[in-house]
Amino acid sequence: MKVRVYVTLKNGVLDPQGKAIHHALEGLGFSGVNDVRQGKMIELDVDDAVSDGDIEGMCKKLLANTVIENFRIERQAA
Amino acid sequence: MKVRVYVTLKNGVLDPQGKAIHHALEGLGFSGVNDVRQGKMIELDVDDAVSDGDIEGMCKKLLANTVIENFRIERQAA
Repeated sequence: MKVRVYVTLKNGVLDPQGKAIHHALEGLGFSGVNDVRQGKMIELDVDDAVSDGDIEGMCKKLLANTVIENFRIERQAA
Repeated sequence: MKVRVYVTLKNGVLDPQGKAIHHALEGLGFSGVNDVRQGKMIELDVDDAVSDGDIEGMCKKLLANTVIENFRIERQAA
């Protein structure tokens, strides 16, 4: 089963990578962009026996730094 | 308007970052994980006047390396 984990910076946490992308887009002549935030997406292919709790554990222990990041888990239909 | 761009490696492209995550998960004792792929998520806050074509242009010119990466654009309801 495919599971997607989205990791995003919490509001208020500075995002220099997003700022750099924003700046580069403006340099390329793209206007109308107000803000850019960069996050991560992690695609896991797991056995059906792996529970939501296990995946939450993976996020908290490894995938996301919960001090500055939020995570969201999305299971794909088999 | 919020637009999310998901950038993923094409099939067949080696993903050392995903491999490292997979290895670390196993080291932490999580079993049942068959594969891990890491991608990027970029959240853009754009004016309503910015068209889908503009956003595709941003992806092709800056956000994704289309030689090795796919991208998917997702508009959020206002």
